[in-house]
Amino acid sequence: MASLEEYRRKASFDVRRMLTEIEPQENREIKKKVWHFLASNPLFHEDYTMNGDSKKAKDRTAQQLKVFLSSSGLFANIDDLTYATRTKYLLLVNEGLEIYNANLSIKLALGVMMFSNALNCLGTERHQQFYKDIWAGKILSCFAITELEHGSDTKELKTSAEYDHSTREFVINTPGIGAAKCWVGNLGQQCTHALLMAQLVVNGTCHGLHGFVVPIRDPETLRPYLGITVGDIGEKSGLHGIDNGFIMFKNYRIPRENILNRLADVNENGEYQTFTDPLRMLGASLEILSAGRVGIVNESSNCLLRSIVIAVRYAAQRRQFRDSNGIEKPIIEYQTHQYRLMPYLAATYAIRNFAMEFSKQYVHCVGLSRDDSADMTGVYQSVGGIHAVLCCSKSLITWTTQRAIQEAREACGGHGYHKSAGLGDLRNNHDPRVTFEGDNTVLLQQTSNWLLKLFNETSDRDFSEYPLCLVKFLTNVESILPKKFVGRRKEDVCNVTFVTECFEWLLCWLLKSTNEKMTALLVKHNDRFVARNQCQVFKAKELSLVFAEYIIISHFKAKIDACQDPSISSVLRKLCSLYGLWCLHSHLPLLYQGGYCNTPALADCLSDGVLLLCEAIKPDAVALVDAIAPPDFILNSAIGCYNGKVYENLMNAFRKIENGHFPLEYPDFWKSKL
Amino acid sequence: MASLEEYRRKASFDVRRMLTEIEPQENREIKKKVWHFLASNPLFHEDYTMNGDSKKAKDRTAQQLKVFLSSSGLFANIDDLTYATRTKYLLLVNEGLEIYNANLSIKLALGVMMFSNALNCLGTERHQQFYKDIWAGKILSCFAITELEHGSDTKELKTSAEYDHSTREFVINTPGIGAAKCWVGNLGQQCTHALLMAQLVVNGTCHGLHGFVVPIRDPETLRPYLGITVGDIGEKSGLHGIDNGFIMFKNYRIPRENILNRLADVNENGEYQTFTDPLRMLGASLEILSAGRVGIVNESSNCLLRSIVIAVRYAAQRRQFRDSNGIEKPIIEYQTHQYRLMPYLAATYAIRNFAMEFSKQYVHCVGLSRDDSADMTGVYQSVGGIHAVLCCSKSLITWTTQRAIQEAREACGGHGYHKSAGLGDLRNNHDPRVTFEGDNTVLLQQTSNWLLKLFNETSDRDFSEYPLCLVKFLTNVESILPKKFVGRRKEDVCNVTFVTECFEWLLCWLLKSTNEKMTALLVKHNDRFVARNQCQVFKAKELSLVFAEYIIISHFKAKIDACQDPSISSVLRKLCSLYGLWCLHSHLPLLYQGGYCNTPALADCLSDGVLLLCEAIKPDAVALVDAIAPPDFILNSAIGCYNGKVYENLMNAFRKIENGHFPLEYPDFWKSKL
Ligand SMILES: Cc1cc2nc3c(=O)[nH]c(=O)nc-3n(C[C@H](O)[C@H](O)[C@H](O)COP(=O)(O)OP(=O)(O)OC[C@H]3O[C@@H](n4cnc5c(N)ncnc54)[C@H](O)[C@@H]3O)c2cc1C
Ligand SMILES: Cc1cc2nc3c(=O)[nH]c(=O)nc-3n(C[C@H](O)[C@H](O)[C@H](O)COP(=O)(O)OP(=O)(O)OC[C@H]3O[C@@H](n4cnc5c(N)ncnc54)[C@H](O)[C@@H]3O)c2cc1C
Repeated sequence: MASLEEYRRKASFDVRRMLTEIEPQENREIKKKVWHFLASNPLFHEDYTMNGDSKKAKDRTAQQLKVFLSSSGLFANIDDLTYATRTKYLLLVNEGLEIYNANLSIKLALGVMMFSNALNCLGTERHQQFYKDIWAGKILSCFAITELEHGSDTKELKTSAEYDHSTREFVINTPGIGAAKCWVGNLGQQCTHALLMAQLVVNGTCHGLHGFVVPIRDPETLRPYLGITVGDIGEKSGLHGIDNGFIMFKNYRIPRENILNRLADVNENGEYQTFTDPLRMLGASLEILSAGRVGIVNESSNCLLRSIVIAVRYAAQRRQFRDSNGIEKPIIEYQTHQYRLMPYLAATYAIRNFAMEFSKQYVHCVGLSRDDSADMTGVYQSVGGIHAVLCCSKSLITWTTQRAIQEAREACGGHGYHKSAGLGDLRNNHDPRVTFEGDNTVLLQQTSNWLLKLFNETSDRDFSEYPLCLVKFLTNVESILPKKFVGRRKEDVCNVTFVTECFEWLLCWLLKSTNEKMTALLVKHNDRFVARNQCQVFKAKELSLVFAEYIIISHFKAKIDACQDPSISSVLRKLCSLYGLWCLHSHLPLLYQGGYCNTPALADCLSDGVLLLCEAIKPDAVALVDAIAPPDFILNSAIGCYNGKVYENLMNAFRKIENGHFPLEYPDFWKSKL
Repeated sequence: MASLEEYRRKASFDVRRMLTEIEPQENREIKKKVWHFLASNPLFHEDYTMNGDSKKAKDRTAQQLKVFLSSSGLFANIDDLTYATRTKYLLLVNEGLEIYNANLSIKLALGVMMFSNALNCLGTERHQQFYKDIWAGKILSCFAITELEHGSDTKELKTSAEYDHSTREFVINTPGIGAAKCWVGNLGQQCTHALLMAQLVVNGTCHGLHGFVVPIRDPETLRPYLGITVGDIGEKSGLHGIDNGFIMFKNYRIPRENILNRLADVNENGEYQTFTDPLRMLGASLEILSAGRVGIVNESSNCLLRSIVIAVRYAAQRRQFRDSNGIEKPIIEYQTHQYRLMPYLAATYAIRNFAMEFSKQYVHCVGLSRDDSADMTGVYQSVGGIHAVLCCSKSLITWTTQRAIQEAREACGGHGYHKSAGLGDLRNNHDPRVTFEGDNTVLLQQTSNWLLKLFNETSDRDFSEYPLCLVKFLTNVESILPKKFVGRRKEDVCNVTFVTECFEWLLCWLLKSTNEKMTALLVKHNDRFVARNQCQVFKAKELSLVFAEYIIISHFKAKIDACQDPSISSVLRKLCSLYGLWCLHSHLPLLYQGGYCNTPALADCLSDGVLLLCEAIKPDAVALVDAIAPPDFILNSAIGCYNGKVYENLMNAFRKIENGHFPLEYPDFWKSKL
């Protein structure tokens, strides 16, 4: 505590002001409600002395879900909210929950939120009863898409739903074990209904994937119905509280009404019909595909936050080795340690700001697509752009977080490996986010394809709308590309203007050179598949990742430019510069390859700049994590508490004292503002 | 299987010949004995359907240890072997065990092997009984060094052992909870004796850390003795089978004879005595400090091997997305996927070769230090060098492996997250290796200090002895530094000669520029502590890591140069080049900073070279992993089997069929050679 307080006193800004600047009061209010409920009921107290028995964990999560839905009071007025307000609200509840209990938040998201969202955008009035039952906790759902042999390539899914007009039913079949649905969360033991994606066959013709609501278990007894083989897939590398399951169908029949028929249907006469309003379809697909990814961006940025709060607080207290004056140094004073943590602290601020801002824009855009009076061409452009931005940012953010958690674990030394530190579970539970809701490597290709298309479009484009405004630099490619690095000292690069310019140059160069390589490969092979594949590494893949960094930085820059308080904006500016330079440093090979510089100056300046900013942020680091940290109960880390009692907490954890959790206490600066 | 067999047919070399080339027959024989024993007794069958209940895991590991010691027959003649032969033999047994069961191997290493090694090098005849009892399984030990407040900085350990001449005993005390020993493996529930490091106090004078054998529990009942507070530290992020414990002493008395007195003692008159033969002391400290690290280098390279075998086999079978001809491609055909896996495959060959070669040299050097007739100055130089090489290679290898496991997990998509894939446990169990036996970041400083010292030594040095022969390039600094990159096409860099030259230039430049920075900082601050700290990032830290890569490559090059079979050496050469270029590509910022090139050519060539080699190795990848993979039972991964039944295995794992393990079968090419 002593040394935490010392660092707090050194801060160059007021934590309260930072808090209000970076997160709207109403967001905090919602999360605070979630946290109070979790702290008030022992059923929700996560106990770090518990071992990893997954049977118990699944039971517990199931029980928690029931109580959370029925007793938290958080969903009482959910039906009165407009679509946009509801979506925003649910994202925040999810965020507040996820930071404390990833299992429960995923169970709730899959079982309730995403299902109701899917009914909303793919279903019709017909499915209202499901909607009501799900929020009433009477039924629980899952999303059954992935099969044993196919994940990313959903087109190849083999589960079929063939329409039988004689009984007005769909007959569902699994042709071979390769087509068994698997990995489906909630399916293993508990869900009553599946939202199933299957190939719709009508009169012998396959019409591609469609969504069906498929009853799985009797809601009273939870016994599976006849005609299906369903079970839990067993032990995983994390998320032990989720019952991921597999299922195989054999002539399993469901009523005609169970197809989600907002976009296509089988009518009374047994004929296949589509409702061809492409823009609406696009809107619907945005909601259905993107909602989960927007959730992940938020969740992942919270995991990043947790890891960095823990590591920075620990680093400010842990002392190891004496200096020449015999003073034992807090490890945060070591250059290597600053370099390991400060860039991730900067990334946390940048990414969190992006997640909040982007969620807002996403909700806005979805709202527009549901508004009949809105201008649909604008929405059309936005939808494509939002999808592209989401694909690359989901990838970049989940990868950054996964690395940050590992770095935090290592930075906390041996104690970071104790369960009570919270970092092991965080890593294991976060890990699948790089894979599900779209494998990162596969998603990145969608962004680069979109960027290359924009780059090659000669027609006039309107860059005033979000998210297209982010690619405005495309209008200046010709003037940007000839630029060269002219700086000479680290001070020349330690600012947001340089960072932005350098990123824009890099993006233009990557677009140009990826495009050239692609064109040459097309000429050579006359095969788009081959050409795309062979221009990924060091080209299209980097393009997408650099673009994601650029948009995160652009959002952060906008935030800083709008900030009125100079003591706050000056710190934020340092964070933005550090995040930018740290990214650019990792792209030095590309910057030299593109000829942005042909002397050692750029590498010198970026290296020195990164170190300078790490050192400059260090005195503010503790206050910076204070401003984003949840209360100790929620952070739930023996070595990361606000109160700083690292060794007492660890000893309690070793001796299994105090039931393995911390009191829900808000620091003073929180209390006064909440 | 189909596609595994196809790739096997495409291989450019004979797997049998590769096998004999890269690992001596007798090594395989020893590991095969271990594996046969493990497979023959159900107690040792690791079941991937088991959940992570750590209580059960600890019990099970304890039981396994008992049976392994008493019934495997592997230790029957252990006392008849010479020190060198025994050490080598035990390293191999450990390796064979570790690849299948990390918990058991660690428990055995801490509880028996390292203890007996410590008795050997720090103890005297007096301690023979302990030595006999430990191998007879009558007692079990632990290594108690780390305290709650101090890990890396062992000088600051506070536990004290004060000599009481009236009773001829040491009185052990823990002054405050910060001095509680913790994290000590085997201490939590099971060990009977601790090898304790404590500050020796005689007549009020502290003589620094010394080793003591301290009885902890009654060997019959396992009940702890009075005067100590000992317990299990509880849940960790992995290694659930190890009972890590904490302990606090209050006036706890042990006999005078329990001090390990080969180097220092308290004599009959109650006086402190040292036996000042500095060279012998050095040898002893090499054995005691380094044995564990040599073990880690071997274990970690096996973990790397496991992850890459699994990921490559899976990539050759998993098909996702159809090409323009409608053929579904194995994911190993994707450029991104090759770039994710082939460098780690190359790293596996390079690192494994280093681990084997270095172990041999280490054992040889320790043997010399025990041989009274040997020339001690040579040994002296070797000991320092071996320590320096081990510090940086332990760090590099454990980090490389930790990243490789994560990459493999992600490369196997969702299925990679299933427990039966084996990657989650591998990651969680490997993780602490970056921290224990010396935290990587701290160890790297020891290597850079040694290198800088060599660099600044003006006296004549003898570079003929191992490991000094590895730094022979230091005699040519003047002629190396002015060199520039002159290549123009990727073919110019895809060879071991370029790789070696480029590394030597980089090392010289890093030495020079780190040294300059250090000197400038010393002038400025007149404080070695400050100066050292501030020249770590992008300088001393990189110097050590690059040096580790260089020595790994040098050993690999020597291996290749000695290889007689052109079909084998040609593949090995590609692997060596790829590993080298991949490392160098990550150092491009330094290469440009140092002015090794001032055009885009170097970045171009290295990028293209890496991709070229990834593609060139791909057709051999399956055969390359076959040549290093253990049998399916030992590999123990549903998605990495030699027989290639990925989907059947997964389905069995989902349905918990087959008791969660695979038969011990050797592929044909193994059988014929074993
Ligand atoms: C914890 C967890 C929960 C899940 N929950 C659900 C759920 O509730 N419902 C559900 O339906 N599914 C669920 N899934 C499955 C998840 O959606 C899939 O894992 C994901 O879509 C990726 O597909 P895949 O695993 O088949 O990987 P694959 O598509 O087989 O990819 C494997 C590897 O190949 C690479 N690759 C593939 N194609 C290409 C290409 N064209 N170019 C380059 N590289 C390529 C990928 O990068 C990846 O590394 C879950 C998975 C996990 C791990
Ligand atoms: C699974 C496991 C098993 C273990 N088993 C045993 C055992 O059997 N017996 C035993 O005695 N101990 C054991 N340990 C403890 C282990 O030896 C220590 O964790 C290790 O020595 C590192 O010390 P520390 O944890 O105190 O880290 P610290 O020394 O506190 O380091 C914390 C962080 O600070 C950084 N740091 C520290 N000093 C510097 C510096 N000068 N410059 C830059 N950075 C610095 C480090 O890089 C690290 O990231 C075990 C630990 C684990 C996790």
